[in-house]
Amino acid sequence: MSSVEDVARREQGTEFLPKFDANGLITAVAVDHRTGALLMLAHMDAEAIAKTRESGFAHFHSRSRKRLWMKGESSGHVLKIVEIRVDCDQDALELRVEPAGPACHTLATSCFYRALSSDGTLKRIDD
Amino acid sequence: MSSVEDVARREQGTEFLPKFDANGLITAVAVDHRTGALLMLAHMDAEAIAKTRESGFAHFHSRSRKRLWMKGESSGHVLKIVEIRVDCDQDALELRVEPAGPACHTLATSCFYRALSSDGTLKRIDD
Repeated sequence: MSSVEDVARREQGTEFLPKFDANGLITAVAVDHRTGALLMLAHMDAEAIAKTRESGFAHFHSRSRKRLWMKGESSGHVLKIVEIRVDCDQDALELRVEPAGPACHTLATSCFYRALSSDGTLKRIDD
Repeated sequence: MSSVEDVARREQGTEFLPKFDANGLITAVAVDHRTGALLMLAHMDAEAIAKTRESGFAHFHSRSRKRLWMKGESSGHVLKIVEIRVDCDQDALELRVEPAGPACHTLATSCFYRALSSDGTLKRIDD
Protein backbone atom coordinates (compact mmCIF):
# COMPACT_ATOMS: atom_id res chain seq x y z
CA MET A 1 0.00 0.00 0.00
CA SER A 2 1.39 3.40 -0.93
CA SER A 3 1.59 6.05 1.70
CA VAL A 4 -0.37 9.26 1.37
CA GLU A 5 2.90 11.04 0.52
CA ASP A 6 3.72 8.56 -2.23
CA VAL A 7 0.28 9.02 -3.75
CA ALA A 8 0.57 12.83 -3.67
CA ARG A 9 4.04 12.69 -5.23
CA ARG A 10 2.82 10.43 -8.03
CA GLU A 11 -0.42 12.30 -8.68
CA GLN A 12 0.60 15.90 -8.20
CA GLY A 13 4.36 15.91 -8.70
CA THR A 14 6.55 16.71 -11.66
CA GLU A 15 8.53 13.45 -11.52
CA PHE A 16 7.83 10.86 -14.19
CA LEU A 17 7.32 7.66 -12.16
CA PRO A 18 5.63 5.15 -14.47
CA LYS A 19 3.92 2.39 -12.48
CA PHE A 20 4.67 -0.89 -14.24
CA ASP A 21 2.57 -3.98 -13.57
CA ALA A 22 3.89 -7.36 -12.38
CA ASN A 23 5.10 -8.05 -15.93
CA GLY A 24 6.96 -4.74 -16.16
CA LEU A 25 4.37 -3.22 -18.50
CA ILE A 26 2.28 -0.06 -18.64
CA THR A 27 -0.74 0.44 -20.90
CA ALA A 28 -0.35 3.01 -23.67
CA VAL A 29 -3.13 4.48 -25.78
CA ALA A 30 -2.33 6.19 -29.07
CA VAL A 31 -4.53 9.14 -30.06
CA ASP A 32 -4.40 11.07 -33.34
CA HIS A 33 -3.42 14.56 -32.18
CA ARG A 34 -5.28 16.23 -35.06
CA THR A 35 -8.58 14.34 -35.03
CA GLY A 36 -8.58 13.14 -31.40
CA ALA A 37 -9.42 9.63 -32.67
CA LEU A 38 -8.42 6.75 -30.42
CA LEU A 39 -6.13 4.72 -32.67
CA MET A 40 -4.81 1.74 -30.75
CA LEU A 41 -3.93 0.36 -27.34
CA ALA A 42 -0.69 -1.50 -26.61
CA HIS A 43 1.84 -2.07 -23.84
CA MET A 44 5.20 -0.52 -23.10
CA ASP A 45 8.04 -1.60 -20.84
CA ALA A 46 10.85 0.67 -19.68
CA GLU A 47 12.82 -0.10 -22.86
CA ALA A 48 9.87 0.81 -25.12
CA ILE A 49 9.39 4.11 -23.27
CA ALA A 50 13.10 4.91 -23.62
CA LYS A 51 13.16 4.04 -27.34
CA THR A 52 10.00 6.06 -27.96
CA ARG A 53 11.49 9.11 -26.27
CA GLU A 54 14.85 8.77 -28.03
CA SER A 55 13.50 8.14 -31.53
CA GLY A 56 10.29 10.19 -31.50
CA PHE A 57 8.34 7.19 -32.83
CA ALA A 58 6.04 4.88 -30.86
CA HIS A 59 7.66 1.64 -29.70
CA PHE A 60 5.86 -1.04 -27.74
CA HIS A 61 6.57 -4.36 -26.06
CA SER A 62 4.87 -7.28 -27.75
CA ARG A 63 3.52 -9.65 -25.14
CA SER A 64 3.06 -12.47 -27.65
CA ARG A 65 6.44 -12.06 -29.35
CA LYS A 66 8.15 -11.02 -26.11
CA ARG A 67 10.17 -8.28 -27.77
CA LEU A 68 10.42 -4.58 -28.48
CA TRP A 69 8.77 -3.44 -31.71
CA MET A 70 8.35 -0.14 -33.43
CA LYS A 71 4.80 0.41 -34.65
CA GLY A 72 5.09 0.43 -38.45
CA GLU A 73 8.46 -1.33 -38.55
CA SER A 74 7.15 -3.61 -41.31
CA SER A 75 4.13 -1.68 -42.66
CA GLY A 76 5.70 1.78 -42.62
CA HIS A 77 2.66 3.03 -40.72
CA VAL A 78 4.66 4.61 -37.96
CA LEU A 79 3.27 6.84 -35.23
CA LYS A 80 5.26 10.04 -34.80
CA ILE A 81 5.12 11.29 -31.23
CA VAL A 82 3.72 14.77 -30.68
CA GLU A 83 3.29 14.53 -26.91
CA ILE A 84 3.31 11.90 -24.18
CA ARG A 85 0.79 12.34 -21.38
CA VAL A 86 0.52 10.35 -18.17
CA ASP A 87 -2.53 9.69 -16.04
CA CYS A 88 -3.09 10.54 -12.37
CA ASP A 89 -1.56 7.41 -10.84
CA GLN A 90 0.97 7.02 -13.66
CA ASP A 91 -0.13 3.54 -14.70
CA ALA A 92 -1.27 4.58 -18.19
CA LEU A 93 0.19 6.70 -20.98
CA GLU A 94 -1.51 8.69 -23.73
CA LEU A 95 0.61 9.00 -26.85
CA ARG A 96 -0.53 11.99 -28.91
CA VAL A 97 0.69 11.06 -32.37
CA GLU A 98 0.76 11.87 -36.06
CA PRO A 99 0.04 8.58 -37.85
CA ALA A 100 1.81 7.86 -41.17
CA GLY A 101 -1.07 5.65 -42.32
CA PRO A 102 -3.77 3.36 -40.96
CA ALA A 103 -2.99 2.55 -37.33
CA CYS A 104 -4.60 -0.89 -37.43
CA HIS A 105 -2.96 -3.96 -38.98
CA THR A 106 -6.34 -4.56 -40.69
CA LEU A 107 -5.70 -1.25 -42.51
CA ALA A 108 -8.53 0.50 -40.70
CA THR A 109 -7.66 4.05 -39.62
CA SER A 110 -8.22 3.02 -36.01
CA CYS A 111 -8.32 -0.38 -34.31
CA PHE A 112 -11.67 0.69 -32.83
CA TYR A 113 -13.66 0.26 -36.07
CA ARG A 114 -16.72 -1.53 -34.65
CA ALA A 115 -19.43 -0.47 -32.23
CA LEU A 116 -21.58 -2.67 -30.05
CA SER A 117 -25.25 -2.42 -31.01
CA SER A 118 -28.13 -2.73 -28.56
CA ASP A 119 -28.85 -6.17 -30.04
CA GLY A 120 -25.39 -7.31 -28.93
CA THR A 121 -23.80 -7.50 -32.39
CA LEU A 122 -20.90 -5.45 -33.70
CA LYS A 123 -21.42 -2.97 -36.49
CA ARG A 124 -18.66 -1.42 -38.53
CA ILE A 125 -18.20 2.34 -38.08
CA ASP A 126 -17.69 4.37 -41.22
CA ASP A 127 -14.41 6.24 -40.95
CA MET B 1 -2.46 -19.98 -30.45
CA SER B 2 -5.68 -19.00 -32.24
CA SER B 3 -6.41 -20.46 -35.62
CA VAL B 4 -6.65 -18.24 -38.68
CA GLU B 5 -10.43 -18.75 -38.62
CA ASP B 6 -10.69 -17.67 -35.00
CA VAL B 7 -8.70 -14.52 -35.71
CA ALA B 8 -10.88 -13.65 -38.72
CA ARG B 9 -14.05 -14.24 -36.70
CA ARG B 10 -12.81 -12.02 -33.89
CA GLU B 11 -11.42 -9.27 -36.13
CA GLN B 12 -13.95 -9.13 -38.93
CA GLY B 13 -17.09 -10.68 -37.47
CA THR B 14 -20.19 -9.20 -35.93
CA GLU B 15 -20.00 -11.28 -32.74
CA PHE B 16 -18.98 -9.52 -29.54
CA LEU B 17 -16.27 -11.82 -28.15
CA PRO B 18 -14.37 -9.81 -25.52
CA LYS B 19 -10.96 -11.31 -24.85
CA PHE B 20 -10.40 -11.25 -21.10
CA ASP B 21 -6.92 -11.59 -19.63
CA ALA B 22 -5.83 -14.21 -17.08
CA ASN B 23 -7.58 -12.17 -14.36
CA GLY B 24 -10.84 -12.01 -16.30
CA LEU B 25 -10.34 -8.34 -17.19
CA ILE B 26 -10.36 -6.22 -20.34
CA THR B 27 -8.96 -2.69 -20.60
CA ALA B 28 -11.50 0.08 -21.16
CA VAL B 29 -10.76 3.64 -22.19
CA ALA B 30 -13.33 6.37 -21.66
CA VAL B 31 -13.46 9.17 -24.25
CA ASP B 32 -15.63 12.30 -24.15
CA HIS B 33 -17.82 11.85 -27.21
CA ARG B 34 -18.17 15.61 -27.72
CA THR B 35 -14.57 16.76 -27.31
CA GLY B 36 -12.74 13.50 -28.12
CA ALA B 37 -10.67 13.94 -24.95
CA LEU B 38 -9.25 10.78 -23.42
CA LEU B 39 -10.73 10.82 -19.92
CA MET B 40 -9.60 7.72 -18.06
CA LEU B 41 -8.48 4.11 -18.35
CA ALA B 42 -9.83 1.32 -16.19
CA HIS B 43 -10.66 -2.39 -16.28
CA MET B 44 -13.89 -4.28 -16.80
CA ASP B 45 -14.82 -7.88 -16.16
CA ALA B 46 -17.87 -9.61 -17.65
CA GLU B 47 -20.05 -8.29 -14.80
CA ALA B 48 -18.92 -4.69 -15.36
CA ILE B 49 -19.65 -4.97 -19.08
CA ALA B 50 -23.12 -6.39 -18.37
CA LYS B 51 -23.93 -3.68 -15.78
CA THR B 52 -22.66 -0.95 -18.12
CA ARG B 53 -24.88 -2.20 -20.94
CA GLU B 54 -27.93 -2.64 -18.68
CA SER B 55 -27.67 0.69 -16.89
CA GLY B 56 -26.19 2.92 -19.58
CA PHE B 57 -23.53 4.15 -17.13
CA ALA B 58 -19.86 3.08 -17.02
CA HIS B 59 -19.09 0.37 -14.47
CA PHE B 60 -15.62 -1.04 -13.87
CA HIS B 61 -13.93 -3.71 -11.80
CA SER B 62 -11.60 -2.32 -9.15
CA ARG B 63 -8.45 -4.42 -8.99
CA SER B 64 -7.45 -2.96 -5.61
CA ARG B 65 -10.88 -3.21 -4.00
CA LYS B 66 -11.74 -6.41 -5.91
CA ARG B 67 -15.29 -5.34 -6.62
CA LEU B 68 -17.65 -3.82 -9.16
CA TRP B 69 -17.97 -0.06 -9.01
CA MET B 70 -19.92 2.51 -10.95
CA LYS B 71 -17.79 5.49 -11.93
CA GLY B 72 -19.27 8.40 -9.98
CA GLU B 73 -21.03 6.22 -7.41
CA SER B 74 -19.71 8.47 -4.63
CA SER B 75 -18.77 11.68 -6.48
CA GLY B 76 -21.79 11.82 -8.77
CA HIS B 77 -19.42 12.24 -11.71
CA VAL B 78 -20.92 9.43 -13.72
CA LEU B 79 -20.09 8.61 -17.32
CA LYS B 80 -23.19 8.16 -19.46
CA ILE B 81 -22.57 5.71 -22.27
CA VAL B 82 -23.11 7.01 -25.81
CA GLU B 83 -21.41 4.14 -27.65
CA ILE B 84 -19.18 1.16 -26.87
CA ARG B 85 -16.50 0.35 -29.43
CA VAL B 86 -14.23 -2.68 -29.52
CA ASP B 87 -10.78 -3.00 -31.05
CA CYS B 88 -9.59 -5.42 -33.74
CA ASP B 89 -8.68 -8.33 -31.49
CA GLN B 90 -11.37 -7.49 -28.94
CA ASP B 91 -9.04 -7.08 -25.98
CA ALA B 92 -9.83 -3.39 -25.44
CA LEU B 93 -12.99 -1.29 -25.29
CA GLU B 94 -13.56 2.38 -26.07
CA LEU B 95 -16.41 3.87 -24.08
CA ARG B 96 -17.72 6.97 -25.82
CA VAL B 97 -19.32 8.86 -22.96
CA GLU B 98 -21.00 12.02 -21.75
CA PRO B 99 -19.30 12.90 -18.46
CA ALA B 100 -21.40 14.44 -15.65
CA GLY B 101 -18.34 16.22 -14.23
CA PRO B 102 -14.58 15.84 -13.93
CA ALA B 103 -13.58 12.29 -14.86
CA CYS B 104 -10.56 12.21 -12.55
CA HIS B 105 -10.77 11.73 -8.78
CA THR B 106 -8.34 14.69 -8.54
CA LEU B 107 -11.16 16.78 -10.08
CA ALA B 108 -9.25 17.29 -13.32
CA THR B 109 -11.43 17.01 -16.43
CA SER B 110 -9.29 14.08 -17.59
CA CYS B 111 -6.89 11.79 -15.72
CA PHE B 112 -4.31 12.66 -18.39
CA TYR B 113 -3.58 16.16 -17.08
CA ARG B 114 0.24 16.10 -17.33
CA ALA B 115 2.61 15.87 -20.28
CA LEU B 116 6.17 14.60 -20.29
CA SER B 117 8.63 17.35 -21.21
CA SER B 118 11.86 16.78 -23.10
CA ASP B 119 13.74 17.35 -19.83
CA GLY B 120 11.94 14.34 -18.34
CA THR B 121 9.67 16.23 -15.96
CA LEU B 122 5.90 16.38 -16.02
CA LYS B 123 4.10 19.60 -16.78
CA ARG B 124 0.45 20.26 -16.13
CA ILE B 125 -1.71 20.76 -19.23
CA ASP B 126 -4.19 23.59 -19.11
CA ASP B 127 -7.67 22.22 -19.72
